[in-house]
Amino acid sequence: MNTSLLLVAHGSRREASNDEVRALTTRLRTAADDRFHQVDCAFLELASPLIPGGLVRLIQGGAERIIVLPYFLAAGRHVTEDIPAEIAEVRADHPEVDIVLNPYLGTADSLPELLLSLIAY
Amino acid sequence: MNTSLLLVAHGSRREASNDEVRALTTRLRTAADDRFHQVDCAFLELASPLIPGGLVRLIQGGAERIIVLPYFLAAGRHVTEDIPAEIAEVRADHPEVDIVLNPYLGTADSLPELLLSLIAY
Repeated sequence: MNTSLLLVAHGSRREASNDEVRALTTRLRTAADDRFHQVDCAFLELASPLIPGGLVRLIQGGAERIIVLPYFLAAGRHVTEDIPAEIAEVRADHPEVDIVLNPYLGTADSLPELLLSLIAY
Repeated sequence: MNTSLLLVAHGSRREASNDEVRALTTRLRTAADDRFHQVDCAFLELASPLIPGGLVRLIQGGAERIIVLPYFLAAGRHVTEDIPAEIAEVRADHPEVDIVLNPYLGTADSLPELLLSLIAY
């Protein structure tokens, strides 16, 4: 079974912020090498594609399993309710595709080391 | 000159999200070992301490230099305007302390690897 990855960000009225997510997705695709069939991003609101559109695009690209990775720092309502609700709608339309919600960025064990690596002073 | 670290998050009405930041700060303090004189966190809004209060607490603790590390994913108005404005006020009151604004979390080179490390499936 092939697996695709969808990075899901909040989305911003400021298009440069959305472009930061798109650029990160390009770096993520490179870093993932052959681990995933497809790597793409989607947004909860305010930017394109929205989550359903992003999932459907991966399904049209042949995805059999999709891992949704929330690019969020805290387990607020967006992570615990809104993203699962968006996923549930697409699941209902595409029961043949296994859509898995991954833990969000803020749960990463190595966040402290990443933050320390950022400090140049 | 001793250096202290202040992790600055947005702050949330949901106290559990603020507690996630406080718990991360504890892990950051441990990971930093002896690299910093003090490690603490503050919030732009909605949670305590706010940025001025967090900076003053470090100064009262003897900080000679403070690195402010924005726990933000994108360079929105909060990162480019609001946090610098809060810092500027404390700088004016405490010119003897060197307060440095560090690049924000979203600029970390190794974010793709961190995201990939999160995927358990």
